Amino acid sequence: MYVVIVYDVNVKRVNNVKKFLRQHLHWVQNSVFEGEVTKAEFERIKATLRELIDDEEDSVVIYKLRSMPAREVMGVEKNPMGDVI
Amino acid sequence: MYVVIVYDVNVKRVNNVKKFLRQHLHWVQNSVFEGEVTKAEFERIKATLRELIDDEEDSVVIYKLRSMPAREVMGVEKNPMGDVI
Repeated sequence: MYVVIVYDVNVKRVNNVKKFLRQHLHWVQNSVFEGEVTKAEFERIKATLRELIDDEEDSVVIYKLRSMPAREVMGVEKNPMGDVI
Repeated sequence: MYVVIVYDVNVKRVNNVKKFLRQHLHWVQNSVFEGEVTKAEFERIKATLRELIDDEEDSVVIYKLRSMPAREVMGVEKNPMGDVI
């Protein structure tokens, strides 16, 4: 499964979220990570995110795709996908 | 075509980008929009974004999908998709 994760997390917690996701996914740009994950990895990622965020204030949206989607980049590509493929 | 657009744009220009995308797409959360677009709309959106951003400083990533992807939301859903479907 391929996931794109975008988050809107209070500055008090955002560094923990970023640090955690960086261990599992490719950082795309500010508040966006993506990558291929197994079902087990996906469940672990969600379980940890649940611990890191405040349910009543923060927001995480996870797009679940079959494979890496087509993309177009405009302006600066902050962290080119080529580096990990 | 279904697009998810994430941007990382300098605060000097970000309101213009947000205001423009809001006219065409569904606001998901901070710096993320998505929606169904025709090929013509997609080209117009890209042309305007090119004018609004600074190529050397800002970044826009557009994921191009066939249809609205599966998603999971954790915490607050800032702007539920149900409102537009």
